[in-house]
Amino acid sequence: MLGKAKLLKVYMGESERYKNKPLYQYLVHWLKGKGIGGVTVSRGIEGYGQDKVLHTARLLELSSDLPMILEIVDVAEKIDPLIEEICAMVPKGLVFTTEVQVHRHGKDHL
Amino acid sequence: MLGKAKLLKVYMGESERYKNKPLYQYLVHWLKGKGIGGVTVSRGIEGYGQDKVLHTARLLELSSDLPMILEIVDVAEKIDPLIEEICAMVPKGLVFTTEVQVHRHGKDHL
Amino acid sequence: MLGKAKLLKVYMGESERYKNKPLYQYLVHWLKGKGIGGVTVSRGIEGYGQDKVLHTARLLELSSDLPMILEIVDVAEKIDPLIEEICAMVPKGLVFTTEVQVHRHGKDHL
Repeated sequence: MLGKAKLLKVYMGESERYKNKPLYQYLVHWLKGKGIGGVTVSRGIEGYGQDKVLHTARLLELSSDLPMILEIVDVAEKIDPLIEEICAMVPKGLVFTTEVQVHRHGKDHL
Repeated sequence: MLGKAKLLKVYMGESERYKNKPLYQYLVHWLKGKGIGGVTVSRGIEGYGQDKVLHTARLLELSSDLPMILEIVDVAEKIDPLIEEICAMVPKGLVFTTEVQVHRHGKDHL
Repeated sequence: MLGKAKLLKVYMGESERYKNKPLYQYLVHWLKGKGIGGVTVSRGIEGYGQDKVLHTARLLELSSDLPMILEIVDVAEKIDPLIEEICAMVPKGLVFTTEVQVHRHGKDHL
């Protein structure tokens, strides 16, 4: 798990749902079930996506669908097989990966 | 838009202004005008920049200039021509890019 | 400082402590002492780490240990010598680096 690994980031709307649950919550649970060692979710304060509607914490009526950002880091062998399924769950969002160098991951470190 | 692309991140202070508007709001609007497909803005809870003054949500008097982080992902041909102008708008901030692999971007996916 | 540089990210729990201080506050102070030009800290709203316990802002009793994310960007010559010591301070967290291209950093720009 240390050394060369992948960062996967998923951007979606707070109000998006999947199988009767908020999408970001579903994804966290799903990734845990797949054995991913850690997940971090953050909420943005402003943003727009493909529909070009600006969502912002500054306006009450547009603040119920703020951007949600999910991050995981793991080896390519664990990330790559999940990408297609994640993309299918996030029809309007953004999914990307990038290479990182992991120096510590929980109990393990270089 | 899928495959190899660039992530551009801009870090600035919440209180910075540009043309009579908060800088981060100006940038979001400006990037939309340039046809960038999506923008996400997040607010940090603590940080310092080149002036070495620590801004933190823990102290009321220093919490009005928290770090703001803006992210966009697009192909190099759309990102690169904007970098010089963005840098000019962010005199005290940080602007960097890194290569990413895009798997889904709105309606398109690999 | 411009051109090729490194982004270092550290993920830890909000409740982790180091030398009688919240760990993330200790790290910000420590990095400033090491001459790092800027630090940004963000708080996630949900996540789990190696212990597999989900911390979430949605449940009051689990919201006191939300994920904290610390970011710095600098040249490899300044980042690399700090990594081992940072890893030792973050026994349960995640520490990774990735290469970035810096276009502006405070007063300097390409």
